[in-house]
Amino acid sequence: MTDHLRAIYELTPAPDEDAAAKAFDITLEQTVELPDGVFSEAIRERIVGRVVTLEDSGPGRFRAVIDFRLAAIGSELTQLLNVLFGNISLKRGIRLADVEWPDSVIAALGGPGHGCAGIRRLVGARQRPLLATALKPLGLGPAALAEICTAFARGGIDLIKDDHGLSDQPSAPFADRLQACQAAVLAVNAAEGRQALYLPTVPAAWPQMMMRARAARDAGCRAVMVSPGLTGFDAIAWLRDELGLAVMAHPTTVGGFFQPDHGIAPEVRLGDLSRLAAADMVIYPNVGGRFGFDQPLCERLNDRLRRPLGGISPALPTPGGGVDVRRAPHWARCYGPDTIFLIGGSLYAQGDLTAAAGRLRHAIEGEP
Amino acid sequence: MTDHLRAIYELTPAPDEDAAAKAFDITLEQTVELPDGVFSEAIRERIVGRVVTLEDSGPGRFRAVIDFRLAAIGSELTQLLNVLFGNISLKRGIRLADVEWPDSVIAALGGPGHGCAGIRRLVGARQRPLLATALKPLGLGPAALAEICTAFARGGIDLIKDDHGLSDQPSAPFADRLQACQAAVLAVNAAEGRQALYLPTVPAAWPQMMMRARAARDAGCRAVMVSPGLTGFDAIAWLRDELGLAVMAHPTTVGGFFQPDHGIAPEVRLGDLSRLAAADMVIYPNVGGRFGFDQPLCERLNDRLRRPLGGISPALPTPGGGVDVRRAPHWARCYGPDTIFLIGGSLYAQGDLTAAAGRLRHAIEGEP
Repeated sequence: MTDHLRAIYELTPAPDEDAAAKAFDITLEQTVELPDGVFSEAIRERIVGRVVTLEDSGPGRFRAVIDFRLAAIGSELTQLLNVLFGNISLKRGIRLADVEWPDSVIAALGGPGHGCAGIRRLVGARQRPLLATALKPLGLGPAALAEICTAFARGGIDLIKDDHGLSDQPSAPFADRLQACQAAVLAVNAAEGRQALYLPTVPAAWPQMMMRARAARDAGCRAVMVSPGLTGFDAIAWLRDELGLAVMAHPTTVGGFFQPDHGIAPEVRLGDLSRLAAADMVIYPNVGGRFGFDQPLCERLNDRLRRPLGGISPALPTPGGGVDVRRAPHWARCYGPDTIFLIGGSLYAQGDLTAAAGRLRHAIEGEP
Repeated sequence: MTDHLRAIYELTPAPDEDAAAKAFDITLEQTVELPDGVFSEAIRERIVGRVVTLEDSGPGRFRAVIDFRLAAIGSELTQLLNVLFGNISLKRGIRLADVEWPDSVIAALGGPGHGCAGIRRLVGARQRPLLATALKPLGLGPAALAEICTAFARGGIDLIKDDHGLSDQPSAPFADRLQACQAAVLAVNAAEGRQALYLPTVPAAWPQMMMRARAARDAGCRAVMVSPGLTGFDAIAWLRDELGLAVMAHPTTVGGFFQPDHGIAPEVRLGDLSRLAAADMVIYPNVGGRFGFDQPLCERLNDRLRRPLGGISPALPTPGGGVDVRRAPHWARCYGPDTIFLIGGSLYAQGDLTAAAGRLRHAIEGEP
């Protein structure tokens, strides 16, 4: 069994920086936080990271392969993140590009509780791409949001989630919204033989988040949405382990890490880490929408969420962020059936939500 | 009473972007997440943000003042962060430069439970600058870490904290480390009439973090360290409200937000937000150390932590990250007495930790 985790960093040294020194510094900064020489050889052997290779990778750029000892990481997600991109986040020109995950780390984190197959069972869809939408806008009351749930469930949307900005504002307090929206979706399911799910968004301070998630489960919800950038990644595994809920992860705030020369590659942060941390569904901003991901990145993300990985379940890529309903069949052909298409604004723009959702469902069922 | 929160963004539009459109987009993206026109006038009036001014602020740069309705924010820190820099984190060329905090938001968050005066009482120091150090390196066992505690407490260090990478690794499991280090510090306090504090670092998944913090309080610790970038900001107020502990906040991982053209200004994230979120002591990377903050930024940070702010307590700036012990008196003169100097490596490099700490304490007591 391996005793290390291998991380690959892209370095962009400043003009007065030496690439080898910059790589070596990472091995100290992320472990002992001491200058070289101010610790024993035993600590160097057991704890300090090790530069395996350093290669020129383009003008002014270098690729550093660094092995971190598992003894420095332990088995907790917080310290794993700390080692991968903790103090070095405060430096410059360091981008975590990839990680080779040891089986022991994968096993400790555990991955999705439901995964692709589990979500398909929950919504009763064997092979087709899945459809999700968001309840919006913030400012509507519980009754109005519940009416939207009814319309979307009738039209054949599988997963109807709160907009991620819905928390506990006076316009739609969490408890009232939960009861109204869940009842609306269950009523359509019962009347029309559907299996739509309502996913309340639960981020808050943890004690409140725990209460909201328990209330959701008690109301019959099978899945919820969280924003790990607000709550910390550990919220997802708590929802999996304590409540058995499926989790959709929202990327709010984490774009701060996606700089070209500094940060964490989106396929590592939204891909590998979200899946390892137990997300069953991972929202990311699709190409062509309101955000700046390109298609190769989206495809890498899809691969990270679905590829074989130490025996954990695949998660469902959930591209969103301005996907046009008319382009959905195109994306279904590109990305394949094990994808959730999250489409909001372009359904709302059509006015009759049931009809708009029905057309989308019909178009998607023809693909791929 | 005001019904809005004013946020100032620096915009760096791409060549094909219009600054006014970019500013207007923020008012929608951070609230209703819908294109203009796909919501009612009532929602626009009550929920959507409003561009107050947009000014040219340099070549290719603009300063946008945006008012967000408190009705869109509610009273929770998670949603406040969401509105300030949530989805727009996934875009480009948007930097949250400043926030004008309404009294109602300040009151809802509450600020430090102990603050500068409270920390001074805990360590028995009326006027002088305070001294902190870190237990390191990761890899030492509880007995070795406890010996270091003894040496630093004897030398006159006020606050002896775990290195932030110490979690629950086999080399020094949390429970063993807590008992050994706290006993060591209490023994020196009793024998030599000191009031040093041991601060265990508690980040982990929340249920574990709660257990660790309770164990720390039960062992007699009066303060702990957390890393809000790993746990979420809400951990700090939980420690304040549930356990009455003072909190030192560590900046690990949040450097991802500190890009020149995109992210959150350090004085907002580490300054205002940390203090509002209840941090009593806020670690930041001092100029001249291993990280890239310059002196004007450090001074802005100090000001944000200490300035009058809606009646909440001042917090203690805690510059660290490679501060040289010989330069500590210089920094004490620059930053003033209401500062904690966090000095690690440069004490360890001297070998005899008690003597090194004693010299530092002596030098600092002469200042300012």
